[in-house]
Amino acid sequence: MYIGIDVGGTNLKAGLVDEAGTIVAVERTPLNFQGPEAFAKSLAELAEAVMAQGGVAKEDVKNVGAGIPGAVLDGEILYTTNIPMEHVPLADLFRRYLDLPLLLGNDADCAAVGEYFCGAGRGTKNFIIVTLGTGIGGGLILNKKLYTGMGSGGEVGHLVTHPGGDLCNCGRSGCWERYASATGLIHLTKAAMAEHPESALHTVAAENGAVEGRTAFQAAEMGDETALAVCRRYVEELALGVIDLVNILQPEAVALGGGVAAAPDRLLLEPLQDLVARECFAHRGGKLTRIVRAELGNDAGIIGAAMLGRAI
Amino acid sequence: MYIGIDVGGTNLKAGLVDEAGTIVAVERTPLNFQGPEAFAKSLAELAEAVMAQGGVAKEDVKNVGAGIPGAVLDGEILYTTNIPMEHVPLADLFRRYLDLPLLLGNDADCAAVGEYFCGAGRGTKNFIIVTLGTGIGGGLILNKKLYTGMGSGGEVGHLVTHPGGDLCNCGRSGCWERYASATGLIHLTKAAMAEHPESALHTVAAENGAVEGRTAFQAAEMGDETALAVCRRYVEELALGVIDLVNILQPEAVALGGGVAAAPDRLLLEPLQDLVARECFAHRGGKLTRIVRAELGNDAGIIGAAMLGRAI
Repeated sequence: MYIGIDVGGTNLKAGLVDEAGTIVAVERTPLNFQGPEAFAKSLAELAEAVMAQGGVAKEDVKNVGAGIPGAVLDGEILYTTNIPMEHVPLADLFRRYLDLPLLLGNDADCAAVGEYFCGAGRGTKNFIIVTLGTGIGGGLILNKKLYTGMGSGGEVGHLVTHPGGDLCNCGRSGCWERYASATGLIHLTKAAMAEHPESALHTVAAENGAVEGRTAFQAAEMGDETALAVCRRYVEELALGVIDLVNILQPEAVALGGGVAAAPDRLLLEPLQDLVARECFAHRGGKLTRIVRAELGNDAGIIGAAMLGRAI
Repeated sequence: MYIGIDVGGTNLKAGLVDEAGTIVAVERTPLNFQGPEAFAKSLAELAEAVMAQGGVAKEDVKNVGAGIPGAVLDGEILYTTNIPMEHVPLADLFRRYLDLPLLLGNDADCAAVGEYFCGAGRGTKNFIIVTLGTGIGGGLILNKKLYTGMGSGGEVGHLVTHPGGDLCNCGRSGCWERYASATGLIHLTKAAMAEHPESALHTVAAENGAVEGRTAFQAAEMGDETALAVCRRYVEELALGVIDLVNILQPEAVALGGGVAAAPDRLLLEPLQDLVARECFAHRGGKLTRIVRAELGNDAGIIGAAMLGRAI
């Protein structure tokens, strides 16, 4: 048995995970951050709660894994985004409250590990997950192991696809995630709505109460030309970074995760696959990378955190 | 002992290489391509010639390695650029003429292997070489092994840094190598010369007989403002792709090779290091990638081909 903990900006969610990657018990608690020491204690208490709920003794658990929004190296948090921690030896702090090894991974890296063992990356040797949310996260499995460089690698959202473009939080201008994340898609959708008051995008957005990542796909499904054009343009933005990754790393598969990836195949995955097949370097005689959808949804983080010990 | 063969567009060059990576004998022959069978025979004859010159018996040679301009997978050539070969089982053909294992590598990958064992990549775990020539080549050492994806990975020149820009031979538009290779630098230099007839770039180009990759650096060394601006702009183009690679793979070091890399530090390496330190994702608390110059020059290909057996 393993325990995986997904550390979100507002909640901690722990799962007891078996060897096959099935989540057999789940516990949650609010983050309520009050310093590294209290944070380590919360993780330990949550791990104990999920063991109790699953009826499993500490001796039957190989390790606890935690997916952290930020950069980690071995058992240390280098820095986190949204939670104020820098250079915190979290694995050591954790041991004061629970005598189990705590392994740390970046949250997108945990999603990659989960999909690699139990989802879209099964059977591959080299695999990339790209998660399309507020930003773009990425996780790399290379030679069957999680790859993080010196702890902060895999930041695929911070490829520049529009030099001199929008200033990104990271300090560069024109990062891929500004254009091809859900946020980027919403910008494209709003711009098209401003130019096309007749478009069904307005109706769909009004029904949902807001312009969202899915708005363009929903209106495109109704045959709206403006929405179809937004979807095509978005796939082009997405393809820029995906093909960069394929040309550098040529993995067997790239999986798309996050809310946007739920879009209908004919509007997202199929045109993306076509662009990759046409433009990637290997199209001239090499092997083609498969572009697929992630399979585990929100569970990927917990399953991957639990499986970290098998990936590092 | 090892034998490394550098397969160029017009010549084959073989070196006998000892365990420490020193080239102890060299032989050359024109390529004169007459089909895969004759090509395999030429490689075998060249290997025999370099063994004879070095006074070494076949039994003392562990393997022959060949650096190929194109994509390879195991002992097979998938395709070559400039030489008409596709899906050629070269290692098998080679054995008909010489009973030694022939290992194949892409030429830029061999340069990476050479620098990793004997040059700028010594002591690293993750290392990237970027060669600035007619195009931009790249080789990746990840987790101490040569990384090629499914045989055609490491095509770092085909990151797009200018979407919708110049059409590249690879089929994409705006590839990094169109802007940041020696060719890209020459384009920038010529454009600046057309706008600035007073610039010392004209004098330097006339003295060298042509506008070359080094022209801008030479005129900049004389204090020419136009040339200094060309150098600054070129470093920005170079930084776009280097920072992309650092954000994705965060290696300990990126080494620049090829003729352009010989430019004075204060015009090339130092401003590039500054841009990387300021803009790479890890600058916020992670570890910084070193940006260095490749050390082995033209020997990297032979040494790396010879050492392929230790890298794959």
